[in-house]
Amino acid sequence: MSGPTAVVLGAGSWGTAFAKVLADAGTDVRIWARREQVAAAINDTRTNPDYLPGRRLPDRITATSDAAKAIDGAEIVVLAVPSQTLRRNLAEWVPYLAPDSTLVSLMKGIELGTLKRMSEVIVEVTGVATDRVAVVSGPNLAAEIADEQPAATVVACTDTDRATLIQAAISTPYFRPYTNDDVIGAELGGAVKNVIALACGIATAMNLGDNTKATLITRGLAETSRLGVALGADPLTFAGLAGMGDLVATCSSPLSRNRTFGEHLGRGETLEEAQAATKQTAEGVKSCLSIRDLARRHDVEMPITEQVERVCHEGLSPRVAMAALMARSTKPE
Amino acid sequence: MSGPTAVVLGAGSWGTAFAKVLADAGTDVRIWARREQVAAAINDTRTNPDYLPGRRLPDRITATSDAAKAIDGAEIVVLAVPSQTLRRNLAEWVPYLAPDSTLVSLMKGIELGTLKRMSEVIVEVTGVATDRVAVVSGPNLAAEIADEQPAATVVACTDTDRATLIQAAISTPYFRPYTNDDVIGAELGGAVKNVIALACGIATAMNLGDNTKATLITRGLAETSRLGVALGADPLTFAGLAGMGDLVATCSSPLSRNRTFGEHLGRGETLEEAQAATKQTAEGVKSCLSIRDLARRHDVEMPITEQVERVCHEGLSPRVAMAALMARSTKPE
Repeated sequence: MSGPTAVVLGAGSWGTAFAKVLADAGTDVRIWARREQVAAAINDTRTNPDYLPGRRLPDRITATSDAAKAIDGAEIVVLAVPSQTLRRNLAEWVPYLAPDSTLVSLMKGIELGTLKRMSEVIVEVTGVATDRVAVVSGPNLAAEIADEQPAATVVACTDTDRATLIQAAISTPYFRPYTNDDVIGAELGGAVKNVIALACGIATAMNLGDNTKATLITRGLAETSRLGVALGADPLTFAGLAGMGDLVATCSSPLSRNRTFGEHLGRGETLEEAQAATKQTAEGVKSCLSIRDLARRHDVEMPITEQVERVCHEGLSPRVAMAALMARSTKPE
Repeated sequence: MSGPTAVVLGAGSWGTAFAKVLADAGTDVRIWARREQVAAAINDTRTNPDYLPGRRLPDRITATSDAAKAIDGAEIVVLAVPSQTLRRNLAEWVPYLAPDSTLVSLMKGIELGTLKRMSEVIVEVTGVATDRVAVVSGPNLAAEIADEQPAATVVACTDTDRATLIQAAISTPYFRPYTNDDVIGAELGGAVKNVIALACGIATAMNLGDNTKATLITRGLAETSRLGVALGADPLTFAGLAGMGDLVATCSSPLSRNRTFGEHLGRGETLEEAQAATKQTAEGVKSCLSIRDLARRHDVEMPITEQVERVCHEGLSPRVAMAALMARSTKPE
């Protein structure tokens, strides 16, 4: 008996940890790395020293920087590249996709300019039917999953059979996927949480306590949910693992890139200084722009997102932004 | 112009911090301490060294261990004693209550045996109408509020005028109260969060990461909400500050008594050892029993509460309890 074969496109920390999950669940998996030396390191040392240092990767994983070879024949195609590069990358990969493969998005962003969710970009670029696209999202800090800490996640797909296929391909004793049909809710929960995590990082750097952060998280989920409902998501998704669960994990963890980036901003660094200091992409920095625009287009109030955008891109002082958020709270809940 | 006068019955950390909020909002406030030396310390040193060390209390606060004197003429009567002693204490105080005073509960527990919420105990013991009782609950770690960190809270009362009166009496630049009419939801959110915080403490001591804790918090709020709906609460309350907000603050903070107590249990200490080590009451240890019973009476599944009760009172190993919780998660979300 042999299960489906899978490819993970993108060898960042979550792509690599997800490849390990697939392998541990018994699925043969290839991983595509943009840089040849990352692929070579994975094959030669069984580790990804740049993005997941110190964690041994299963033998079932092979790596390559040749996308055509990586994708060839894969029934599960996992997309794990930075959100803003997806369109460009995917356009090159379309010719290699197997006819009935399932496309799985791990990406948490909204495309700048088009304001499209990642699954919408996938459908647009590849021309596949919407029900061939699944989204995996939940409280899933990559380093903890690589350490086999118990975690749960959501596999969202409008095609129940495909959701169940992905669920089976990633079920391990430490990783428990639930199925769900709310792709919009899962994607929005994942994208907006990065923006709220920036706000929590800013608050952390300003020495604001757990009461303030819990308030930001609570209000942050409320504004996420308002936008989600306007876009057709099920409000219950936001009370679940892909909404509240992912948000709480990201905002609590010192491992979160977005929270860490927010801490740099909260200490008064400029965007350029924070980027130089962290050497990583914090997805929320870009997606706060597209989420704000999406909210305005749908006439939804997202005060935390608005303030984060101003701190990131308009030079607003974090102190003024936080004061604006707290002053706002005289309205009924 | 003079506002209402208030009394806070109970000089623990939250009672004392709440008295400071009232005073800072311009309300004259007396605080009743069970022990004469606590009252004397507050009057003489303007601090409460046992329960809120290092924070200067406003001059508007006077303390006494004489309940009759403390309560005399107070229009706002704030109850801040341990949940399981409320009935006994309150029975003594009934004769002193002013005829139209508003009774405000800061307590977060469910009475053992009767399975009543604190507001129900208040109504039963005093004979006042339900609409004279308000509940204040939210992400309100006492030490942070005493430090004037920005925080928001919920004032729940079925009488809007009384809710507004309390709101005005506790509004300060650092403390923002919202009104709400869902007393049941606010009380349940507060009570069950102590039990979930015990579970998070247990997980912390077992070195489980932020993914696991975020999953416990998410599922914990889901089981709180199930019980709340069965008892007549508004499910939206659990998505707000008195639900998610309070839960996230308590589970995140190293200042939380319940989380700290859970850490002792998670290290394998017995209930007695943990009590000896912490020297404080963790409300969740008692209320996990009454909440479990309440859930069973209403036929509501509360798996986290069940496991916490077994660890606290039946000697179940934390490892077995956590494994049972993770194994359970194969159901749809």
